[in-house]
Amino acid sequence: MVEVRRHNAAFCQPCFVHHVHETVKRSVKSHRMFGPDQRIMVAVSGGKDSLGLWDILLELGYRVTGMYLGLGIGQYSERSRRVTRAFAEERGAELVDVDLQGEYGYDIPTAGRKGSRSTCAVCGLSKRYVFNRVALDHGFDVVATGHNLDDEAATLLGNTLRWQTEYIARQFPVLPQREGMVKKVKPLYRLSELETAAYAFLRCIDYVVEECPLVGGHTQLRYKAAMNQLESTSPGTKAQFLLGYIDRAAPLFRNEDKAELSPCERCGQPTTGRFCAFCRARAQVLGERLGAPGPAAEDDRQVAGELSEEVLPAELYGDAPVGR
Amino acid sequence: MVEVRRHNAAFCQPCFVHHVHETVKRSVKSHRMFGPDQRIMVAVSGGKDSLGLWDILLELGYRVTGMYLGLGIGQYSERSRRVTRAFAEERGAELVDVDLQGEYGYDIPTAGRKGSRSTCAVCGLSKRYVFNRVALDHGFDVVATGHNLDDEAATLLGNTLRWQTEYIARQFPVLPQREGMVKKVKPLYRLSELETAAYAFLRCIDYVVEECPLVGGHTQLRYKAAMNQLESTSPGTKAQFLLGYIDRAAPLFRNEDKAELSPCERCGQPTTGRFCAFCRARAQVLGERLGAPGPAAEDDRQVAGELSEEVLPAELYGDAPVGR
Repeated sequence: MVEVRRHNAAFCQPCFVHHVHETVKRSVKSHRMFGPDQRIMVAVSGGKDSLGLWDILLELGYRVTGMYLGLGIGQYSERSRRVTRAFAEERGAELVDVDLQGEYGYDIPTAGRKGSRSTCAVCGLSKRYVFNRVALDHGFDVVATGHNLDDEAATLLGNTLRWQTEYIARQFPVLPQREGMVKKVKPLYRLSELETAAYAFLRCIDYVVEECPLVGGHTQLRYKAAMNQLESTSPGTKAQFLLGYIDRAAPLFRNEDKAELSPCERCGQPTTGRFCAFCRARAQVLGERLGAPGPAAEDDRQVAGELSEEVLPAELYGDAPVGR
Repeated sequence: MVEVRRHNAAFCQPCFVHHVHETVKRSVKSHRMFGPDQRIMVAVSGGKDSLGLWDILLELGYRVTGMYLGLGIGQYSERSRRVTRAFAEERGAELVDVDLQGEYGYDIPTAGRKGSRSTCAVCGLSKRYVFNRVALDHGFDVVATGHNLDDEAATLLGNTLRWQTEYIARQFPVLPQREGMVKKVKPLYRLSELETAAYAFLRCIDYVVEECPLVGGHTQLRYKAAMNQLESTSPGTKAQFLLGYIDRAAPLFRNEDKAELSPCERCGQPTTGRFCAFCRARAQVLGERLGAPGPAAEDDRQVAGELSEEVLPAELYGDAPVGR
């Protein structure tokens, strides 16, 4: 039996799996995330959410390919890759396996030590960039990530506590394709962390349980804790918060996303400045110089405005779990 | 020494009192709450916030009168009235003393038992109505209440978690005068509960410390707890949330307040229906009948839309401390 308090329901195993599939189907349909003929790339970290999402989309018969990005975080990354490969092999599913060091010349621990950004910030930035790049290069129609209800509610809480209206405006289950940016979707946004964990367990998915060893301060976890506290006395608080935003409040923020993008002079990806945040960060880590000297200080708002339709300031400022 | 972590400051006694006065002056000025010639009515419960506010406005030389509403909650109300009267006498300040039972024929414990609303809901409704009525009858220009930063942040959190955009739209330090509604202001909105308590202590104000004995479930307290938890690891969270809303997000919600008001057929106060929520609630408690049979069920949204520019759904749904 799996109890879902906010639905005041308890499911047996097959019914729970059915409930998860139906919830995802409904999310995909109501936001027109993708159709049966489109090619979907799932960004896979090896955790329960992204592997669960991959499994669900395979089960629902979609044309879905996994994409694993090796971040070079020692044992943690090795185990993540192993688990992801095993998942793909078991199901005969396609997997694109990219290595950050191999493709771009740095790994996350080095970037965290050498750059001016926190480890989580540069990791989030790198992931968003590479996901988009790989999807473009391989001709995928859409990138799907495993963000669940708890992730999204915590991020929304963080953005709302600071009334970062631009970030709030960009937090949506679907971000349409723009010049140089692949469409992005979050099909699990209606499922809680408890539900995605139960799903992975019931489907016997072997996933990496540990948190990334580099995750430190973790603002996002504090927001999750606050939401969990409220949820415990008032089941449904998280869902009400996130879904209420999507249904009623998002239109009020629509005009707050003011980022104007033009191609990065180095890589051609859209950016609000001359060089994109990824190229700037990478150049810094590798000790390279990008063109003529630009503006002295980097503007975090600019960084947030770039590449980051799914802007998670939490990620930018050092908080999101790696690999999602 | 009083430490204020979010300002990263510690004040000696005279400096702290000065800091509080300056903060209130700044709030009054920046929102044009009132001028030196206007007549201000402070709604006084006998608690630290409202007595502190009264003290501050007297110290700053404003034309201010206290207004105490006796709610008939046994010992608690008696002690509140005693403390309020003593404060007024000590300072030679004007006090308007109104008794709910004497003026309107019911007290709060009876209303809580007999009516269909929770005790806190009918109490909040009654206070808002009577404050406005008394201010109109006595020709006051503005009603000031002692809502502090913690109150306002908690209310905003509650409204935001449910994205109750109409309530969010109406939560502001100043609500302008409208037909039949006196202007309302919250001069303490920039001061935390800790600061108002320290102020009352340093100024030797004798106030009622106990919570209202009728306060039960207390959703508002849960929001305060959540905010306190976030504040403890990240000082300034509350202020950032409330002030960020006021500065940046409030304009986005401006058009969400859609209540259209017309006079109540019984008392003439503005309402969205035929009879105002106060008259309906009172009639219910007293077993009276209001005109011809109206719509069968009361609509909580309507209740919220009425009389309640300072709508605290928390109050309406049973959560706010009595007497503020």
